[in-house]
Amino acid sequence: VCFVLKKGTKTNQPFLEIVLQTSLLSSSGNHGRVATVLVSQMRNNATSPNIKVDFNQSTGVAVLSMQSPPVNSLSLDLLTELCINLEKLEMDRACRGLIITSNQPKVFSAGLDILEMYGKSPERCGEFWRAVQEMWLKMYGSNMVTIAAINGSSPAGGCLLSLTCDYRIMVDNPRYSIGLNETLLGIVAPFWFKETMANTVGHRNTEMALELGLLYSPSEALKIGLVDQLVPQDQLLTTATETMKKWLAIPDHARQITKSMMRKPTLDKLTSNREADIQNFVSFITKDSIQKSLRMYLEMLKKRKA
Amino acid sequence: VCFVLKKGTKTNQPFLEIVLQTSLLSSSGNHGRVATVLVSQMRNNATSPNIKVDFNQSTGVAVLSMQSPPVNSLSLDLLTELCINLEKLEMDRACRGLIITSNQPKVFSAGLDILEMYGKSPERCGEFWRAVQEMWLKMYGSNMVTIAAINGSSPAGGCLLSLTCDYRIMVDNPRYSIGLNETLLGIVAPFWFKETMANTVGHRNTEMALELGLLYSPSEALKIGLVDQLVPQDQLLTTATETMKKWLAIPDHARQITKSMMRKPTLDKLTSNREADIQNFVSFITKDSIQKSLRMYLEMLKKRKA
Amino acid sequence: VCFVLKKGTKTNQPFLEIVLQTSLLSSSGNHGRVATVLVSQMRNNATSPNIKVDFNQSTGVAVLSMQSPPVNSLSLDLLTELCINLEKLEMDRACRGLIITSNQPKVFSAGLDILEMYGKSPERCGEFWRAVQEMWLKMYGSNMVTIAAINGSSPAGGCLLSLTCDYRIMVDNPRYSIGLNETLLGIVAPFWFKETMANTVGHRNTEMALELGLLYSPSEALKIGLVDQLVPQDQLLTTATETMKKWLAIPDHARQITKSMMRKPTLDKLTSNREADIQNFVSFITKDSIQKSLRMYLEMLKKRKA
Repeated sequence: VCFVLKKGTKTNQPFLEIVLQTSLLSSSGNHGRVATVLVSQMRNNATSPNIKVDFNQSTGVAVLSMQSPPVNSLSLDLLTELCINLEKLEMDRACRGLIITSNQPKVFSAGLDILEMYGKSPERCGEFWRAVQEMWLKMYGSNMVTIAAINGSSPAGGCLLSLTCDYRIMVDNPRYSIGLNETLLGIVAPFWFKETMANTVGHRNTEMALELGLLYSPSEALKIGLVDQLVPQDQLLTTATETMKKWLAIPDHARQITKSMMRKPTLDKLTSNREADIQNFVSFITKDSIQKSLRMYLEMLKKRKA
Repeated sequence: VCFVLKKGTKTNQPFLEIVLQTSLLSSSGNHGRVATVLVSQMRNNATSPNIKVDFNQSTGVAVLSMQSPPVNSLSLDLLTELCINLEKLEMDRACRGLIITSNQPKVFSAGLDILEMYGKSPERCGEFWRAVQEMWLKMYGSNMVTIAAINGSSPAGGCLLSLTCDYRIMVDNPRYSIGLNETLLGIVAPFWFKETMANTVGHRNTEMALELGLLYSPSEALKIGLVDQLVPQDQLLTTATETMKKWLAIPDHARQITKSMMRKPTLDKLTSNREADIQNFVSFITKDSIQKSLRMYLEMLKKRKA
Repeated sequence: VCFVLKKGTKTNQPFLEIVLQTSLLSSSGNHGRVATVLVSQMRNNATSPNIKVDFNQSTGVAVLSMQSPPVNSLSLDLLTELCINLEKLEMDRACRGLIITSNQPKVFSAGLDILEMYGKSPERCGEFWRAVQEMWLKMYGSNMVTIAAINGSSPAGGCLLSLTCDYRIMVDNPRYSIGLNETLLGIVAPFWFKETMANTVGHRNTEMALELGLLYSPSEALKIGLVDQLVPQDQLLTTATETMKKWLAIPDHARQITKSMMRKPTLDKLTSNREADIQNFVSFITKDSIQKSLRMYLEMLKKRKA
């Protein structure tokens, strides 16, 4: 399931633009134990079903491409694969830089998979949320240089994934948008989403963006600092690769200590409150009123498709 | 009493421009017990002497207009009426949005009434300060969508009142100004004024603004983010109303939880230090040197009028 | 020893541009007890060997010029003289404003003297670091109005010194640069450098700048708020003097309380962790790997000179 909500450049009024909806039909049954089995099989593969990793030994740079049709929704499966791949790359001393991008057209990632939050048991919801936390902790605290090559829309969890990186390059296509738009669905970005955004664009931009669920066009995102650079589609990966060279010119140990100094206070807030944060999420998302909101949203998506 | 200090656009040098001075002649004797009586009478009126409230049941939006001649100085009376009205609107579930504006020409609010701080007993000063705190706590922590429609100058406490809102629209008249200019009078904005401003325009802008007592023209205020939008005078209320619609399109519960997440840390700092903050204020404002500063300021106002 | 690293305006790729290198030949032996003796002698002089102070009784403004050839490297000696002069001015009630500038051509200050960190005993390194802390505490917490008149490049510790001031005016010469570029040398700016910068240019700019060791051209520095104003070389001191008048128009006590409110939380973090911060620095800088980095850097400087 995905949602792309776009802030009109003229009216400033948010409106729904369902870009991709086929995920509603995609099976989402291979979870839980099955996923665990898959995961153990994947440990020995550089490439797992939904993630492709190209590691260039000579440059020390890995390109991780999400390829989970149709819109790289962050399901428990995709998050698990992502975390496993991140851990492998993090432990590989030869890998110093990571470029994250998408193999799906028009979308970087549609964000957290709503089907993981709708009609699921509290245990399952908690398992899912722990995986979201794990992804954030691994990315925001990575010792590697991380660059998001954002080649499509990147709402909600997709925006969060981008924000965890050291640098964000986005394709300059006004049809793409990026932002933490959770409130539009009646749900709420947790405090560590908020802190990650505030560390990037400041308190006031974050307050406005989160309360209104704003999605920014690439040029708007550049203006407030939500992304660092815009490029034409065909220059995205070369620009990311060139940018990576500049970051890798800095001695790793000095850069890593500095990065940790900047991010550790934020990371610590979640690390020391992880279980409480899971409980918060589970008790919120399993509320009747919230489940109703999600059902209405899913039904609206179905109608639009029909 | 009011003061409007304006930052010159060319020299950048602050200079006094006494716009309105008649408040010096206005009686300020109907305080204390009298006010309490007034207040009980007002409880059953949508409109109290100095405040007019228009609540539109169909839109769920209330327009609160300050109409305390000549310049909406925030006296204990006006603050008390403001708090009572805010509490009523807050408790009315039908009221989802609040637009605050002024019925006085050329001024939104001249800020805290200096006559409440000059020559008053410590007890009275403390009572006044508690009302200032109460106004800030109610506004900054409001569950309603709050929009400031700033139709005139808005120094000191007037700026604070604007800053508590979710969104600020100011009339684009270069003769109007806005800012926390307390230092120009020899007094000091307390930490929660500072935090409210820093949450809006960042640490460095706040440092400069507070130390120099800067008052910004509308275009300068827009540039640093002190206001969000400028409009011609005759479009102020329609723009505020249109903006309100966008905010009310967001599910209340998600927006309210998000707003609380953004503002609770700042609110908590005052809530947990309220008595100490009152004591700080009282011991500062009743100092001989500070009283002397205020007297000189009041005498200067009188001379200008003569 | 000095280093000036400049961010290319087009390629954005940092490259080394060794502007001044003669300091490698300058004697650095008059330290320790000798310095203490010098220091006592200096107490009665307005002008010490490496620092010139012109105090104008009628305006209440002192101009402090660093004149430690060739590039005002912040050695233990220079830092000690700086602190003594600052203390004297701070205690002189007639002195309300301080302008800091350089008497050396093309450079404000090249930053911390690398020779103080290379091949020195832990005790000596600790003594040096304590002096760096002392300079920062005195400057960032000064009751005087402090203005940096930046008449040349200002990397690393030179940038820090600028950042401690209330206002920064830089000569608009694209050959000059400013920034906290420590990572380029394999060393790390400590948390209080970081906080000082973040208080000025925000979290995200600081994260990028510190991780990449960015040096900004004057116009780039102005854009992110690292400096407040650019002027032609020949207008630097007159502009600083005019700006000082505006700051001194504010009542001292109100400005000082406000400044303290803005900066005390940051100052307290170091004051309450001073010894631990020294230990951190000493154990880091005396590591074999770090000493090796510094040796390579010094050798590169020598080669460039040859």
